[in-house]
This record gives sequence, C-alpha cells and structure tokens, in this order.
Amino acid sequence: MATTPVAIEVWRGERVESRHRVRACVVDADGRTVLAVGDVDEPVFPRSAVKPFQALALLETGAADRYGVSDAEIALACASHGGEPEHVSLVEAWLKRLGLDESALACGPHPPLYAPAAAALIREGKTPRRVHNNCSGKHTGMLAAALQLETPTKGYEHVHHPVQRHVAAAIAELSGLEALPEPGIDGCSLPNHPLPLRGLARAAARLADPSGLAPMRAKALERVAHAMRAHPRLVAGTGRCCTAVMEATSDVVAKTGAEGVYLAAVCGRGLGVAVKAEDGATRAAEAAFLAVLDHLDALDERAKATLAPFMRPVLRNFAGLTVGRIAPVPGWPAAS
Amino acid sequence: MATTPVAIEVWRGERVESRHRVRACVVDADGRTVLAVGDVDEPVFPRSAVKPFQALALLETGAADRYGVSDAEIALACASHGGEPEHVSLVEAWLKRLGLDESALACGPHPPLYAPAAAALIREGKTPRRVHNNCSGKHTGMLAAALQLETPTKGYEHVHHPVQRHVAAAIAELSGLEALPEPGIDGCSLPNHPLPLRGLARAAARLADPSGLAPMRAKALERVAHAMRAHPRLVAGTGRCCTAVMEATSDVVAKTGAEGVYLAAVCGRGLGVAVKAEDGATRAAEAAFLAVLDHLDALDERAKATLAPFMRPVLRNFAGLTVGRIAPVPGWPAAS
Repeated sequence: MATTPVAIEVWRGERVESRHRVRACVVDADGRTVLAVGDVDEPVFPRSAVKPFQALALLETGAADRYGVSDAEIALACASHGGEPEHVSLVEAWLKRLGLDESALACGPHPPLYAPAAAALIREGKTPRRVHNNCSGKHTGMLAAALQLETPTKGYEHVHHPVQRHVAAAIAELSGLEALPEPGIDGCSLPNHPLPLRGLARAAARLADPSGLAPMRAKALERVAHAMRAHPRLVAGTGRCCTAVMEATSDVVAKTGAEGVYLAAVCGRGLGVAVKAEDGATRAAEAAFLAVLDHLDALDERAKATLAPFMRPVLRNFAGLTVGRIAPVPGWPAAS
Repeated sequence: MATTPVAIEVWRGERVESRHRVRACVVDADGRTVLAVGDVDEPVFPRSAVKPFQALALLETGAADRYGVSDAEIALACASHGGEPEHVSLVEAWLKRLGLDESALACGPHPPLYAPAAAALIREGKTPRRVHNNCSGKHTGMLAAALQLETPTKGYEHVHHPVQRHVAAAIAELSGLEALPEPGIDGCSLPNHPLPLRGLARAAARLADPSGLAPMRAKALERVAHAMRAHPRLVAGTGRCCTAVMEATSDVVAKTGAEGVYLAAVCGRGLGVAVKAEDGATRAAEAAFLAVLDHLDALDERAKATLAPFMRPVLRNFAGLTVGRIAPVPGWPAAS
C-alpha cells in the first residue's frame, strides 16, 4: 500500500509540530474519479458519514410519509447532533409521535457534544440520556422504518434486521459495490460497513446528483440533501464544521464521521467528496476536506473567510497567546 | 526525511480503522543510541516532557532549600497534574508560603484535566482558575527560583528571564546540544525549545543515570527522579498513564508531553526513552511508549497486565459493547 502523503501540518511558531496524512477522493456524477490521493480502494469505516444514506430506510419504506416526518426530522436522522436543547426536544417529540420513548433507542447515552449543553446537565444534576447521543435522530428514523415494515423495533440495530438490510443494500448500490465488506460495530451500536474511499465518494456524488437512479431512490436522496441544507443546525450544531459549511455555501451537503472521515456532495456540480485522515484526527479531516472543496473551487472568498477557523485554525493557548496554526500543505491535494 | 513507520493500529472489529506513525529513540547512559525508529534528529517540541528538566531551576538556584520545598512539591513542579483537589491545594499552599498567590502564575486557566474535578467546578458554579492549569506546579517552582535569584517574578515566563535561561542551559547540556533551536510558546506560555528525539532521549538517560555530570546537577536530577517516583499521583493523577507506569514499575520515571510526546528514564539501567507520535495523538504516544518499555524488558508481567488499558486498550462504545482495540504493530519497535 502506497504511503498516504502529509496533507495537514500543525505549526508551533515557525516549526511543524505534528503532521497528518489524509486520503481523499472526488468522483463525478458519471462515476469518474476526478481526484485520488492515497489508496482510495482500501475499505475504511465511514462511520457517521453514511448517515445521509442510512436515512434512506426512513424515506424509502414509506415511514416518512406515514408519520408525517418533517425536513427537520430528516435532517436529524442524518445528524451527528450536539445534544443541544433543540436537538433533544425534537427527537423526543418525534419518538412520542411514533408511540415510543428513548428506551427504544439502541444507542447508549453520552454527554452532549456541545460543551455548554453538557455543562448544563451537570449543573442540573442530571445524567446524559440516550436522546443526548449524537445519533439519536438516526435511531429514531430507523425505529420509524421498523414500524412501517411491521417488524419488531427491538433488535433494529442488528445487521440482519430488515431496516439494516435495506440500508446496506442502498449503500452497496450507491457506492457501486456488489457486496459490502463485513461491518464493524459503530459507536451507536449499528453495523458500519467499511467502504473504499472511492465508493464513499461515489455515493456522495449520487447524493449530489441522483439522476440515473430508480425514481424512488433518486427522490429520497433529493429530499435528504434538501433537508440537510435546509436545517444545517440540526445536522450538527453550534460551532460545528458541517453546520458552518452548509451555512456558508449554496450547494454543499457536508457530513462528518468519527475517526477522521468527511463526506461532501457538491450538488450543483454532481461531485462527491470523501476524505479519511489516516490517524483518525478530526482536526485533520476538517482542514483537508475544506482544502479539497477549495481545490474544486466550491468555496467563494466569503465562504473561505467564514470557514477559516476549520481550514486554517489559529492556535491560542490558555493565556490567549497565539502559539501556532493548522494549515494544509501548500499544493495539497492538487500536487499529491 | 524518511517516512516514520506505522507503530500503533486502531482496530474496529477485524479491520484496522486508523493508523499512527511514531518515532522512538532510546539512549544509554554513555550517550549511545540503542534504538532509533524514524528520524530522531529532526527537532520536535518536547512540550511537558521536559518538565523534569525545567524543575532544575528550582533545585539548582537553591530555592528548594531556602523555601523548604518538599518532594511532593518537586513532583508537582514536574507535573501535568489533573487539577484534582490534592493538586490544587498543594499548589495554593506552596504559593502562599512564597508570599504569592495565583495571580503570579503566567499560565492561563483551564478546566481540570480530571473530568470529575472539572464537573465538580461546574456543579459549584465556579470557573477554572490558574491553579487548575496542569502546569501550575511547574510555574510555582519557577516563581520560587525567580525569588531566590532576586529577579522580578513578573516576566519569569519570558525566554530572556534568568529562570528560563537557567532551564535552557540545563536542557542544552543534558541533551548534548551546543545551542537550542528557537523556542515555540507552550500551552502554559513558557518557551519550549524543540529538541531532536535523540537529544530528548539523551536527557532522559541522564535523568536515569546522572553520574558524569557536575555534582550539583547530578544531585538535582537524582532528587527529581526520586520525587516523581515517590509521588506518582502528583505527577499526573487518577487514571493517567504516567502515574500508572510509575506505580507499576520499580525504576521507571515517566512524563508525557502534549502532541504525542513521551519521555521515560529507566533508572536501574541508565536508559532514556523518547517517543513522538507524528500526528500528535496521545493514544498513540501512550501505546508506543509502553511498547518501547516492553521491548526493553522494563515491564514485568504484572506491570504489563496493569498497563494494558494504555498499551492495548479495548474500545467499548456508549452502549458498553466491545467494538475494537488499540495495539502496537507486531514487532514494533524492534523490526522498524
């Protein structure tokens, strides 16, 4: 396997302190690989970057229509949300409308990703609940799909449950794979099938331009992209890169995944982007993903200025002194 | 520059999800390089791994004697402590004995590294103070040195202050460098001079066996090693790798630094160890550092079992399911 090039450098003063290697792939609407940096054929766990595709079970089973699921709820089904009050109350209301409560969620509890929300829980003497899990919207969507399929909701997280089989078949088609590699177990207990970065980028390209797919799937992907762009704060939250990218651009859908994964659909141009930081670092995935968008001319000057805190963050210490910066290696990914 | 080999793999199920490249160097008491993995001559910021050497100003100026500084306080001067109540109260008492308070500390405030201590502050409606900074003991030691030198305490953090000049000269001697490269600014606002990993390992070897140095310096290093080993909970704290290593071994001094640095002195054998994770990840530095100690036969079976949560951690998700593991690449660092 070829060595992945260094993409992101962490500087302290005038010297590089740490280095991140990042693979990247861009695929167009016709399935052509437009950019490939590093090995884009080794399967990588996409983690939460496949949430836009995991949400297809909610739409394609008819559950979304039956339960009057809103665009806000679809955005939450695609979200790694911050556990902010708005996220939690929307998930709770949705569960209630399904006749369920959070005990039905297979994801475990964790403190809200949004630090002030986590602090508020501590101040109130409360412990984190499953609805605070960043994946609670996705799980609620899957519960709706299970109800619609008239299958047991208990066990919906298992790989052989009809909901997961629907999701896996959809991801296989979108990524152009005949069969998916064996899954790992995700942080929220769902199966997570590894995908070549090229396949993940191809799926992203189909989110950007679903023409050519069967009408039901195309329509579902269009609604997913529309809902995520309509509710960027529900897809992630305050201070988060996905939210900032969707707010700063007119046609990009962005979704992060744990361990340094990023996915984007540049809808106006039918381009799909996937990146994976070799070491799993979020700071590297964010900066590299934005460098790829910049390389594709998908960011105007105003967007670049707004997104600089993710693409070229200035590092300050606890006393407020500027001590360094994070930046893409000049020329990356073009010269790689 | 040669590519650093992959040292640590993060597995999800039966597949590697993320990979960390780590440089490592071991030097013996005679200054001979026993192990070199990756480029060990490029200067790297040692960050808090040089705290045992930064503490020399406290001892060698005579401040420790004048102010009756205890071994516990010396351990705190070498610490990246957790901001646990014991750490904070000892630092506050020491400052008071010097006739100072925390306003004299140049380090900024940050929440205690030990999460329950951070949560306790939130519950009590208090904000983090400078004494909670993991470096507050080091800064207190430097203030004592400044008082002893009859120099202003204000500005003790600047590179030209006599305390910092003393520290820099000591680090240059111990690491075998004629002159130190230009420093960066550390997280706590002190100058941090980059050192080749080989030089950092050489300094660690002198902490392990200071014979051959001038008597005052040798005696000071002996006291530093003794104090850190006598008070491992003050050097880091609950649940921390440095503390666990010193508690599990009979002759190892261990000190971590931010951005994936680790330093160890295997005192009984006069060996110095330094590692740097290319990407700055702590999880990689901890596992790799322990793999080096294991390679050196510095860990007995009981220590290896106790330290497994740092060397070969099992990864569980929020629902408590085992989802993966972190482990050194078989053969690393021997085969690299």
